[in-house]
Amino acid sequence: MEKPNFTIKGNICHTTPDGALSLHPDSYLVCENGVCTGVFPQLPDWAPQTVIDYGDLLVIPGLNDLHIHAPQFTFRGLGMDRELMQWLETYTFPEEAKYKALEYADEAYTIFADHMRRSATTRACVFATIHRPATELLMQKMEETGLVTYVGKVNMDQMSPQYLIEDTAQSERDTIDWLEATIDRFARTKPIITPRFIPTCSSQLLAALGRIAADYNIPVQSHLSENREEIAIVSKLEPDAASYGHAYDKYGLLGGNSPCVMAHCVHSSDIELELIRKRGVFIAHSPESNLNVSSGIAPIARYLDMGLNVGLATDVAGGSSECMFKAMAHAIQSSHMYWRLIDDSWPQLTFADVFHMATRISGAFFGKVGAFDPGYAFDALVIDDSNLLTPKPLTLTERLERLPYLATPQHIVAKYINATPLF
Amino acid sequence: MEKPNFTIKGNICHTTPDGALSLHPDSYLVCENGVCTGVFPQLPDWAPQTVIDYGDLLVIPGLNDLHIHAPQFTFRGLGMDRELMQWLETYTFPEEAKYKALEYADEAYTIFADHMRRSATTRACVFATIHRPATELLMQKMEETGLVTYVGKVNMDQMSPQYLIEDTAQSERDTIDWLEATIDRFARTKPIITPRFIPTCSSQLLAALGRIAADYNIPVQSHLSENREEIAIVSKLEPDAASYGHAYDKYGLLGGNSPCVMAHCVHSSDIELELIRKRGVFIAHSPESNLNVSSGIAPIARYLDMGLNVGLATDVAGGSSECMFKAMAHAIQSSHMYWRLIDDSWPQLTFADVFHMATRISGAFFGKVGAFDPGYAFDALVIDDSNLLTPKPLTLTERLERLPYLATPQHIVAKYINATPLF
Repeated sequence: MEKPNFTIKGNICHTTPDGALSLHPDSYLVCENGVCTGVFPQLPDWAPQTVIDYGDLLVIPGLNDLHIHAPQFTFRGLGMDRELMQWLETYTFPEEAKYKALEYADEAYTIFADHMRRSATTRACVFATIHRPATELLMQKMEETGLVTYVGKVNMDQMSPQYLIEDTAQSERDTIDWLEATIDRFARTKPIITPRFIPTCSSQLLAALGRIAADYNIPVQSHLSENREEIAIVSKLEPDAASYGHAYDKYGLLGGNSPCVMAHCVHSSDIELELIRKRGVFIAHSPESNLNVSSGIAPIARYLDMGLNVGLATDVAGGSSECMFKAMAHAIQSSHMYWRLIDDSWPQLTFADVFHMATRISGAFFGKVGAFDPGYAFDALVIDDSNLLTPKPLTLTERLERLPYLATPQHIVAKYINATPLF
Repeated sequence: MEKPNFTIKGNICHTTPDGALSLHPDSYLVCENGVCTGVFPQLPDWAPQTVIDYGDLLVIPGLNDLHIHAPQFTFRGLGMDRELMQWLETYTFPEEAKYKALEYADEAYTIFADHMRRSATTRACVFATIHRPATELLMQKMEETGLVTYVGKVNMDQMSPQYLIEDTAQSERDTIDWLEATIDRFARTKPIITPRFIPTCSSQLLAALGRIAADYNIPVQSHLSENREEIAIVSKLEPDAASYGHAYDKYGLLGGNSPCVMAHCVHSSDIELELIRKRGVFIAHSPESNLNVSSGIAPIARYLDMGLNVGLATDVAGGSSECMFKAMAHAIQSSHMYWRLIDDSWPQLTFADVFHMATRISGAFFGKVGAFDPGYAFDALVIDDSNLLTPKPLTLTERLERLPYLATPQHIVAKYINATPLF
């Protein structure tokens, strides 16, 4: 892979490691050997003198979506009238079953990949379905987008409809075969172990997946404490586990060695949160999904205060859109309702909070990603907000603050991932 | 004004008077003398044979926004970190003060009117500022859009900053002068009496506005029971009133004779709701605003069950967008959180509910508006959803259900108001 050297000029905006806005109007963002060297008010003598001048545009780190279901993109915006378990049965499982047919998968994943390429997302953790061929097809398509992604073949061998269930031994074999086939196949697209969630995975399967994750040193993604009915099911299935999270942990599926990201954590108990912290698990906060399937509101301000790795996610199709700008708005809005309706002892989330979550915190799941610090991957969005007309003079902070509410993929005029422009 | 005769062919979708979806695939919507004659599966012999064939596109009634602040459009998406009273002081009042300068108003209202013209909104109740010249300029600009609107010069003579306050007598005179100047000036744009809300209006001013509304037979718009701090202020200012609503009613400003629309009603007491019902007041449910400025969630399912006129609104800039599609999504999402976090004895809102609210219920504020029944105003949006790609075959209902989440003004390919196409 080529290692580009260049400099970008514009309004460079990211966050500090402790979550404050770090704004550099009319500044220089230097890329050397494909990696950020830093942000400078003047073009340094030693920096690449090839300057791409974006004028008054906004330059921000790429947004990292920690949880999205590619096969569910086909019914985004539909079926928002059920809670989780009924939503899965009514809408999700019948749709995911269609991906047994590669032709359907090809059509659906082409649309998904095209949206992701043009979206604000630079890196993502993606669920596929149980089907190995369709999962590999999705990986191929994601590779072609230029995004950096983890893509998971889903495992489920119980409490699932007959048309969308695996034999336990076959699920294990398929997972190993899929890993062998894909672990070194792509530059940007890597496999991730993906038990759907505890209810749909037998103990035997969970144990096997834990072993595979350890053997191959592969990260893990799943769902955790999203919905009360789900949690009740888990406590019946795993009566000895101190929490839903402990059930994953028992099988080596809650981080520790390899990175782990768990979606939701809306209803996590203190003991579960303590384990999440201990294991360094990433939480994929999915605010729109939590509204749409009536899961509730996660106490994100508290989690941030605890120092947890709380990233942000769209969770299509619990969420209706792949747009991470919208996810930021929903995170702020949900925090307002948490404050108003549940507990006002935790502050509401600010723009800086959700920007930090979507960039630096989510990015950390992928390594040195999500900021413009020296040594960080050069992932950037260049945003032209000039058609968001107003006669009111706006500060740079205000221009940023509008993005969650007003920005769309059409405002992104350039998108860099690992220093390569996608468009 | 010309009275057009024509027929539209397409997938005609509206609601029945009791709020059910009424879907007519591949049908004919007939317009005679500028008014709907009805929807028919075949083109009737007697109907205008000039057929505009929209093929497989969706044809829905125009959406009616019952509450939007035109001067606040300049800071849409900004300042979402305060509750109502502090939000007004910090962001809103300083911005509204700028409209004393007609040049600023001209620039701002040009942008606002342009967005409204291209939006999903066909009719709206609009707040201006206290400034009469800028209000008349806004009315002129709204008239040019082709929308049907009520526009209100705001009144405020107390508890307001010195830079945005009126002398009581002057406020009354200005209001009368403004009414005299505008009541017959425009075809589509009419004045509406607009006390900002009880806290910023003296008893003397409220009494005067009530008299003026009655004398000129003009409708009234204001805010009601949005925020707990606001309600506490009102109960101090009007200690004898049984509720915030009763305070308006005391001055003849809560409907009865002329139509009245009150934004929010998030925290309305039973006695206030009873008066709202008795007076036939329209409630402008503004779900995004209620999230953004942390007001809370109104129990809309209960209000609908009570038979109240609960319309829908964007409430820019408490809401970030003029897009009524988004308002529908926020209404559904907020109802999910009401169900989850406050009271699950009321059902969550469905697409049919919010579609009905945005069309037929909101429309009723403007007369026979918001449906395709015989005798109704011919207000329609033609929506091309073909770029919302999916391989999943969608029913007509599903295509509609996606709109709140996925549709933007760009999906509107034609917009008719009183049978006149705006584009």
